Amino acid sequence: MEKLTLIKVGGKVVEEEKSLSEFLGDFSRISGYRALVHGGGRSATILAEKLGVKSRMHNGRRITDAEMLKIVTMVYAGLVNKQIVAGLQALAVNALGLTGADMNCMRSEIRPVKEIDYGFVGDVKEVNADMLAQLIKTGIVPVLAPITHDKKAKLLNTNADTIAGEAAKALASLFDVTLIFCFEKKGVLLDEYDEDSVIPQLTPKLFEQYVIEGKISGGMIPKLENAFEALKAGVRRVVITRADELGKQETGTTITL
Amino acid sequence: MEKLTLIKVGGKVVEEEKSLSEFLGDFSRISGYRALVHGGGRSATILAEKLGVKSRMHNGRRITDAEMLKIVTMVYAGLVNKQIVAGLQALAVNALGLTGADMNCMRSEIRPVKEIDYGFVGDVKEVNADMLAQLIKTGIVPVLAPITHDKKAKLLNTNADTIAGEAAKALASLFDVTLIFCFEKKGVLLDEYDEDSVIPQLTPKLFEQYVIEGKISGGMIPKLENAFEALKAGVRRVVITRADELGKQETGTTITL
Repeated sequence: MEKLTLIKVGGKVVEEEKSLSEFLGDFSRISGYRALVHGGGRSATILAEKLGVKSRMHNGRRITDAEMLKIVTMVYAGLVNKQIVAGLQALAVNALGLTGADMNCMRSEIRPVKEIDYGFVGDVKEVNADMLAQLIKTGIVPVLAPITHDKKAKLLNTNADTIAGEAAKALASLFDVTLIFCFEKKGVLLDEYDEDSVIPQLTPKLFEQYVIEGKISGGMIPKLENAFEALKAGVRRVVITRADELGKQETGTTITL
Repeated sequence: MEKLTLIKVGGKVVEEEKSLSEFLGDFSRISGYRALVHGGGRSATILAEKLGVKSRMHNGRRITDAEMLKIVTMVYAGLVNKQIVAGLQALAVNALGLTGADMNCMRSEIRPVKEIDYGFVGDVKEVNADMLAQLIKTGIVPVLAPITHDKKAKLLNTNADTIAGEAAKALASLFDVTLIFCFEKKGVLLDEYDEDSVIPQLTPKLFEQYVIEGKISGGMIPKLENAFEALKAGVRRVVITRADELGKQETGTTITL
């Protein structure tokens, strides 16, 4: 199978001109088929503030009322997505910006209300992998914004990590997929205060051991559980690294089964 | 050649839920290949106001500084485009939202400063008609937002009528193109206060006569000159009509050579 590198990038990297430009340069130098998933939460929060709309979060996830849905649609699918697409086109990468609604490439359902009502937040139900693969094989580089739709005319806000994971899993039967999460740290750290303590390789067994020893804790646990889930669904490799390490060999944490 | 209907819609129609939903219903019932170009100027002006950014216009065209470029990118490529795409997907129309940057489908150059500096406004230089045609023939319905790029990483604001005209001209060698401008009036009126005075057919000769007689004047003159230019470039028919007349036969003004 042919190789596909699917990169998730978010945070400051995509929202500051200089770091975005550097990142896109590194991305353009990756060989083989590529796809990109981006966030944009900081810009959404800033725009919401300017508009007097309060950002409410729960467990790091944005609660999305009707006003906030408009804001994230504008920021993710408009501003951030098109700046990335135009930036890649300037580097001769044939980028195409997509939300889940475009060509129905990712359908979701509004998250059921349990303890918390997340509002217009979608859980991914279906990825149109054949269509995405067809585009990719013609040389197009999909740039996915974290907005999906329910196929009933409603746009839904969907976590970018989830979009990346679901896209990688769906494409795993068609490509040899490497999923790279760009992150603020150089990788999964054994000591969170030491950037040089990156764990180079992580297996489920080692992960379990580090969790028991308290070396891996907090928000990194669900992130890694998702990575293992992607691997079980056929994704070849999951890498967690820092965006500016992307061009380098053998950096970050590689997660395998 | 196969038929392609390219519709330009703007104004209130695309910015109010009820009228948009009705328009998309009518659009979905058009047979044959279709493409859509939309505006969104009112929503951009409203967002700009909320953000304390002043909208400056010259001859009906928006002067676009860096802040305004962000606003129109968010509103046109984000909010309006994705609401239309999601609305069409719900009607089983396989819509794909595009700016000129996406797949480099429309390249422009920043407008040279003459009497007036329009800022980040692009004049269309190149339309990737082959790529658009390829998409259209696979059943995809392009939904073009009035944002282009210069292929040097810069997004540019571009008039939606111009986008529609340029796309129609570029596609005219590949399809039998009908270009429909949806407008606030039922068509080109002989008496601007009488909605029943629609001119059913307009040729260059008749146009000239009406201009001399003062029956056609003001902003309608450049609109019609653009229509004749499109026809000369190979577009089969140009129709000017009201959005809610779209489903009906024999309405509006048909412009031919």
